[in-house]
Amino acid sequence: MQIYFDERQQQHSPKAFLLRGKVVDSPERPERAEAFLAALAQGKHPVSAPTDHGEDPIHAVHDPGYLHFLRSGHRSWSAEPGASPEITPNIHPNRHMATKPSGMIGVVGWYTADTACPVGANTWEGAYWSAQTALSAADHLVETGQTALALCRPPGHHAYHDMAGGFCFLNNAAIAAQRLRQVHDRVAILDVDVHHGNGTQGIFYDRSDVLTVSLHGDPSVFYPWYAGYAEETGQGAGADCNLNIPLPRGTGDQEFLDALPDAFDKIRAFDPGAVIVALGLDGSEQDPLQFFQITTEGFRRMGAAIAGLPYPIMIEQEGGYPSPILGDNLRAFVEGFEDARAG
Amino acid sequence: MQIYFDERQQQHSPKAFLLRGKVVDSPERPERAEAFLAALAQGKHPVSAPTDHGEDPIHAVHDPGYLHFLRSGHRSWSAEPGASPEITPNIHPNRHMATKPSGMIGVVGWYTADTACPVGANTWEGAYWSAQTALSAADHLVETGQTALALCRPPGHHAYHDMAGGFCFLNNAAIAAQRLRQVHDRVAILDVDVHHGNGTQGIFYDRSDVLTVSLHGDPSVFYPWYAGYAEETGQGAGADCNLNIPLPRGTGDQEFLDALPDAFDKIRAFDPGAVIVALGLDGSEQDPLQFFQITTEGFRRMGAAIAGLPYPIMIEQEGGYPSPILGDNLRAFVEGFEDARAG
Repeated sequence: MQIYFDERQQQHSPKAFLLRGKVVDSPERPERAEAFLAALAQGKHPVSAPTDHGEDPIHAVHDPGYLHFLRSGHRSWSAEPGASPEITPNIHPNRHMATKPSGMIGVVGWYTADTACPVGANTWEGAYWSAQTALSAADHLVETGQTALALCRPPGHHAYHDMAGGFCFLNNAAIAAQRLRQVHDRVAILDVDVHHGNGTQGIFYDRSDVLTVSLHGDPSVFYPWYAGYAEETGQGAGADCNLNIPLPRGTGDQEFLDALPDAFDKIRAFDPGAVIVALGLDGSEQDPLQFFQITTEGFRRMGAAIAGLPYPIMIEQEGGYPSPILGDNLRAFVEGFEDARAG
Repeated sequence: MQIYFDERQQQHSPKAFLLRGKVVDSPERPERAEAFLAALAQGKHPVSAPTDHGEDPIHAVHDPGYLHFLRSGHRSWSAEPGASPEITPNIHPNRHMATKPSGMIGVVGWYTADTACPVGANTWEGAYWSAQTALSAADHLVETGQTALALCRPPGHHAYHDMAGGFCFLNNAAIAAQRLRQVHDRVAILDVDVHHGNGTQGIFYDRSDVLTVSLHGDPSVFYPWYAGYAEETGQGAGADCNLNIPLPRGTGDQEFLDALPDAFDKIRAFDPGAVIVALGLDGSEQDPLQFFQITTEGFRRMGAAIAGLPYPIMIEQEGGYPSPILGDNLRAFVEGFEDARAG
């Protein structure tokens, strides 16, 4: 399987985030990509740098004011007296007050969902190349019909069209889907990260041309808390074009695999021209986030099951955080997928 | 002037809040009340403990679920692995996702507006007695017709009916206004804190019986950022019953005093039975927050000007943070008020 990755993605290297009231080290570190690359190298997967598609495909999904914030916000932030090295919000608009302000602290809260998406001096550079990586995997699928894997880092599925969140800035899956829409009338995104793909859902929530399906930890007790419920099925033209399958804490291999057929049925009924798999590995039994209990063998079976979908598929990396088996889990998923497609 | 204060208010002693990405010491410390009491003692103002009015007057303003969170949330929070000593949010509902979750981290974000309202083990106790202090000053006004000062701490004007924010938990001014409504058809609240009284505005925004008027730093560049704009004038039955007067950074004595007549005109046109002054001293030239440049003499003139309103008035303390002249500013306001009423 062809892999896309750009070393410039590693320029985004977030240091801190606020967890249960304490500033802790961010787990969304460059070493994640290093672990993925080392594991894939063992499988002799070729790794290519992406083509530079410029900003147009990013603008096709994201809000101009938000992109301006991502690109230039860090300079304004750094001019605030006593500002931390990374942009971190301390207040957001809410159900009682929602006028957009001009001052930097207010702007930060406007364009971020939480304290887990610190914007540093090089975040734009990293996020830009992460998006290019997804676009190149989409190109590969269009041009060869073969599956490619975009080693996106930072990840993307919590980013709304105008809001960062949960380690995500540009929604790589959505940007790739928009690219694939140039050649397919309908595109489906299947998100198997342990967290709900809330940003992706939000971007396509009122559209009928992109189906969004997500299996994830029950949001009533897990990030992103305020979206990801089964009742959210799309609206307007997008009615019935979103499927959420929340799963309980402790979900293991078999429970997860047993939930996949409902997702597959939804995708088959939609009959897309292509499928994007938003692959999170943070459901691992050894992931520091500790919600699901999926084994390395479970990821292999997951890859094999998804490979059975009768559509062109591209894979793009979402979450999955440092553990001794992080790379093994990616390789297992990829091998499971490849073996099934070859079989 | 009669002062109300209860030592139990001091049990709320917040340690930390997140400011520009850094955890810093909270300025809303018990020493604020000590500075106020020491300054007022020089003026020989009698200080009494409040009467306990129970929870009914608090329930008359606040949401039951929110009160449950304030009372018992700290126990649930402390059970989360690695939780900080004080409840601090890291995510909130937003314009894209707003389903109410059951898990503690999500509940915290539901009931708080920002990272400046840490809830500790004794926050409920302190906020409860702060509200009782306001209620006793309202009683004093009803029973004697004379002005009393409620030395509320924690302050209240950023608290919505179901949301803490900006050092505030229970909205003392709103609770006192609801009490005064038992004897007056109409009550006005005049908020002169450097920050917009967003919670107070929100509580009465659709009501015609309580006029809310606030002079404050321009929210487009200052806390609370997302409310406090001149365009916000009330809604429904409360249409035209809210007046915001945003003032620029650097506003000094004369500029502030020049803005008061518009507030007074609004109050006179409303013809309330009583007026509550939500007195913030954080517009001081020496306040650590540094937005307005009001001098001690300016607070004296402010007190005198407000005393000219031909209505029964009670005063309740909002913001104002440690500086060498914090107590002086309160005494100057009180003396200016008293001299004008005596003259």
